[in-house]
Amino acid sequence: MKITEKLSSAHRREDAPPTFSFEFFTPKTAQGVQNLYDRMDRMYNLSPQFIDITWNAGGRSSNLTCEMINTAQTVLGLETCMHLTCTNMTLEVIDEALKSAYDSGCQNILALRGDPPLDGSESTGCFRYAKDLIKHIKEKYGDHFCIGVAAYPEGHPDEPDVDRLIEILKEKQDAGGDFMITQMFYDVEQFITWCKKVRDYGITIPIIPGIMPISTYASFSRRAKWCQINVPSWFQKQLDASKDDDSEVRCLGTQLVADMCLKLVESGYVNHLHFYTMNLEKSTIMVLEKLQLIDTHNQPVASVRDCGVESQVTVPWRRSLNPTRVNESIRPIFWSNRKFTYISRTSNWDEFPNGRWGDSRSPAFGEVDLCDGDLIRHSPKRAVELWGKPQSIDDVIDLFVRYLQGNLSSLPWSDGETSKEINVLLDDLLALNRQGILTINSQPCVNGLPSNHNVHGWGPSNGFVYQKQYLEFFIPAKFLTKLISNIEELNKSYSSNFNTLTFYAVNAQGELITNSKEDDINAVTWGIFPGKEVVQPTIVERCSFLAWKDEAFRVFKAWSSLFKDQDQDEFEVLRDSKTRAVLDKLHDEYFLVNIVDNNYVQNPNVKIFDLFKTLH
Amino acid sequence: MKITEKLSSAHRREDAPPTFSFEFFTPKTAQGVQNLYDRMDRMYNLSPQFIDITWNAGGRSSNLTCEMINTAQTVLGLETCMHLTCTNMTLEVIDEALKSAYDSGCQNILALRGDPPLDGSESTGCFRYAKDLIKHIKEKYGDHFCIGVAAYPEGHPDEPDVDRLIEILKEKQDAGGDFMITQMFYDVEQFITWCKKVRDYGITIPIIPGIMPISTYASFSRRAKWCQINVPSWFQKQLDASKDDDSEVRCLGTQLVADMCLKLVESGYVNHLHFYTMNLEKSTIMVLEKLQLIDTHNQPVASVRDCGVESQVTVPWRRSLNPTRVNESIRPIFWSNRKFTYISRTSNWDEFPNGRWGDSRSPAFGEVDLCDGDLIRHSPKRAVELWGKPQSIDDVIDLFVRYLQGNLSSLPWSDGETSKEINVLLDDLLALNRQGILTINSQPCVNGLPSNHNVHGWGPSNGFVYQKQYLEFFIPAKFLTKLISNIEELNKSYSSNFNTLTFYAVNAQGELITNSKEDDINAVTWGIFPGKEVVQPTIVERCSFLAWKDEAFRVFKAWSSLFKDQDQDEFEVLRDSKTRAVLDKLHDEYFLVNIVDNNYVQNPNVKIFDLFKTLH
Repeated sequence: MKITEKLSSAHRREDAPPTFSFEFFTPKTAQGVQNLYDRMDRMYNLSPQFIDITWNAGGRSSNLTCEMINTAQTVLGLETCMHLTCTNMTLEVIDEALKSAYDSGCQNILALRGDPPLDGSESTGCFRYAKDLIKHIKEKYGDHFCIGVAAYPEGHPDEPDVDRLIEILKEKQDAGGDFMITQMFYDVEQFITWCKKVRDYGITIPIIPGIMPISTYASFSRRAKWCQINVPSWFQKQLDASKDDDSEVRCLGTQLVADMCLKLVESGYVNHLHFYTMNLEKSTIMVLEKLQLIDTHNQPVASVRDCGVESQVTVPWRRSLNPTRVNESIRPIFWSNRKFTYISRTSNWDEFPNGRWGDSRSPAFGEVDLCDGDLIRHSPKRAVELWGKPQSIDDVIDLFVRYLQGNLSSLPWSDGETSKEINVLLDDLLALNRQGILTINSQPCVNGLPSNHNVHGWGPSNGFVYQKQYLEFFIPAKFLTKLISNIEELNKSYSSNFNTLTFYAVNAQGELITNSKEDDINAVTWGIFPGKEVVQPTIVERCSFLAWKDEAFRVFKAWSSLFKDQDQDEFEVLRDSKTRAVLDKLHDEYFLVNIVDNNYVQNPNVKIFDLFKTLH
Repeated sequence: MKITEKLSSAHRREDAPPTFSFEFFTPKTAQGVQNLYDRMDRMYNLSPQFIDITWNAGGRSSNLTCEMINTAQTVLGLETCMHLTCTNMTLEVIDEALKSAYDSGCQNILALRGDPPLDGSESTGCFRYAKDLIKHIKEKYGDHFCIGVAAYPEGHPDEPDVDRLIEILKEKQDAGGDFMITQMFYDVEQFITWCKKVRDYGITIPIIPGIMPISTYASFSRRAKWCQINVPSWFQKQLDASKDDDSEVRCLGTQLVADMCLKLVESGYVNHLHFYTMNLEKSTIMVLEKLQLIDTHNQPVASVRDCGVESQVTVPWRRSLNPTRVNESIRPIFWSNRKFTYISRTSNWDEFPNGRWGDSRSPAFGEVDLCDGDLIRHSPKRAVELWGKPQSIDDVIDLFVRYLQGNLSSLPWSDGETSKEINVLLDDLLALNRQGILTINSQPCVNGLPSNHNVHGWGPSNGFVYQKQYLEFFIPAKFLTKLISNIEELNKSYSSNFNTLTFYAVNAQGELITNSKEDDINAVTWGIFPGKEVVQPTIVERCSFLAWKDEAFRVFKAWSSLFKDQDQDEFEVLRDSKTRAVLDKLHDEYFLVNIVDNNYVQNPNVKIFDLFKTLH
């Protein structure tokens, strides 16, 4: 969606709180990219209007910006704006970048001139100025893209004359620029004076101020100097007084930047704040909290997504903004903690199941086109930092327990932290893991809670949401027979010809045991909304479970292979045959099992957990 | 489904109660056909394994049997068996009949020889004996059809030798007969002896006895004589003693026939009873009640449909057995009391919405290809018998009140009696009609009742069913503004940006007022079943409502036109300009309105009715 549309929709009501967005730059390493994805994933929850990614012309991979834009749109469901520079760029590279953005569903381009060659020569690219790039985009894509332009309230290294810069800004608006993002600044008075000039000059597009939070004194000083911006002396003095106390600087910096933001909004020229995050989250979040735009649990205070635009029926997982999968409405529950591999293995689907599987199931789950490293999503070094070198099954159990307790940020099967909704199951899950049953996915039973419920709610407000209790885990093969007989006994106690509990169990070799029928598709999450059809976004079914099983067991192998004997010295430190033996044993001797409690009306959430009490 | 499969499935357990089926013959008049459809519709609820329709060779319309088979399969959802005779029939007629049965989804043919020419000459048809017809069906359709044959335990007018008849029966089995239905009889001892002979002769196919209930002494005597069957003297004597008391004969006859049935079942040769209904229901139902196969409310005692075969997820309306629409899974609520016209107007659809409308909505609702008489479903004479000649709006109101009270079997908008489920709404509905608001469709709110609930349940057992409260009615235009403002007020009292109550209001001219969006599709009935996707079989949406509105208003016109000045003498009696004026006024000055209460969780069922309290 276009940024200008999002903003005008969010500010339809005059008293709407200011909105905000985040800028990220392309990291230098592959692991850095993975980490940034995780950070962007967390920051999604703050409800930014969009995020943007800088253009990495000359970076290690010229299409990393495009790749990150695609991931943000497709996997993370973040509205994006792609930076694009034009100096020293061939038309081919520019057109490829535009096409990639278009294909990803990105509708916003920040059209920049970019730095001229360092040797002082003329640009070698086909466009000399940002306005040329803007015209090109307009010619090629009409009104598809919303085009942002850069603005320099305090001058530019190549053009210190602010009035001349306003003329150039007007040219960029006239060429088709739809909004502007300004360079960072700390002098609010000067900025407001500049805004007045800009408006007086006939520039009408939204002014989005670029805000640089202050995290350390050193970085603040470096950036102010680098950008040749004016720091008011009272501002500088306050920071100087605390320059040796990092925490004091951050605290004070937060206050100063928040005050600045308030003044900007009060001026009436600004209703949206663009944060230069420098790929960090803490200092930006502190400013947003100080401004009371998010609460202390980092949740947005006003539900920005609900503002303005009539919300379509949404889903309880992160909706992709990629046009090829924007209508996706069902996912198997198995990948709920692994959105990256789910998107990867379904990326070639022509069509996504729309309301029910039916014919759409035909594009069967492809192979995961990922190497072991991608399966683990961390470098070997980082993986060991996170999860150590388990020397026994108990060490692995300990990881699962720490993860559930919130003391570990991820597990090989779970990209991020646990969902708040499993809190009601936490004690039971901990007990199960300590018993040697490794849980990797679960959801509690929900029987008709309001759709705006703070933990379980999703979709438009004033509906009702439901879930069947679900639990998925690895269990030693030796416990399986007893577990299944417990399931059968419990089912019989309810009804002779009906399964209250349905389950699938499979080992790495693919031996499947189940009490479900071949074609059963079990809706385990659904919602009822006024004037709408029933929405059933999460299901459990055989064909996707078997595809997931391949991946779930392969993660053991990928993890184990980090510790194998390596030729290269750099991996020397990782060699550990004991860890390998532990992980291989889990791969070879455990079953992957999932259980659904179909009676979401009468059953308490303990039902499934009761099954394990008599296993030993 | 094949009769043999149905029977072996229903009798998998040895102690299963006997099953039964009904035979009907083709009526002589169009009104008779409509009345018989209504009767078959009611008798569906007794859960017969199948019904059969006799072959009307030489009748007024040679394809009436085919038409009735198609209606029974498609509209009424009854498993059928089509009689087909072969003497004096061209191959073309036979093949057309078979194709028609095939297309309707009928899988059972009772292959009969039929009567030879009355003048004693040889058959002019291409087949001489039933076995020739059986061979022909087998050659043409392989095993598609389950083939029944006739058996004569007491001889046949053309062949009194019972042993020779058993030889012929064996030939029919050998040619491909799958089951037999016997001629009527009252001599059980003789019948059981015959069964033994049949089995001894190597005939293994199921023996289905033809049972003729006794309704009057005269008809009993006439039929026994006509069929040249033996009536045991003790049997005859008992009936003779009461021959002048019709009610006594029926009572005694019920007891005698029920005793006979019990003996048949006890003999071990029989587990299914085939009733020659003579197109009547009372005497057959009395025998079934006496046998305790249905209870005094005419409900089947054992849920025969649940026996054996794994039930697929069903729907709360009558599922069609026609193969072209057997997968139909959604219907708009508007036609819930008008299945004939719904089937008629959607008969050309290539595909039925499967779980959701989506693309399947494209085959838009066609024009109803029915004349006024079909819209009313009764002859002018019968219509006046039923509904009189309303002289005022109050007379019309009185009809609606009597219908709701169960004192009128149908209304022009409702093919049959009201559903039991509206009992909880009855007082409110009566009050509304007495207020001049004519209700034509409603359902109460249901929040997660077990799917085997005796009133609201549907689908496989051990699921949960839901309904949003729904009310549809004609209302004088003058009340509409106030009604809508009441709706809005009530909605506001719940939430400022959400409609608890959604409505559509339209008049004959097509002026639509609604608070729903163009593409809203509101699921108003749904079910959650173990291991299954959510099933949402009934919806409310704009496009089908507008199609329904044409029909709903046209019914006034069709009803009114019965009373216009006619040239023919036969309609003289119907002329009534006052009745016409009343009905035309309803057509011209009323709105058709439906209201859905989307809060099925917290709202009591009175919510919608509250809206009308302050109308006057």
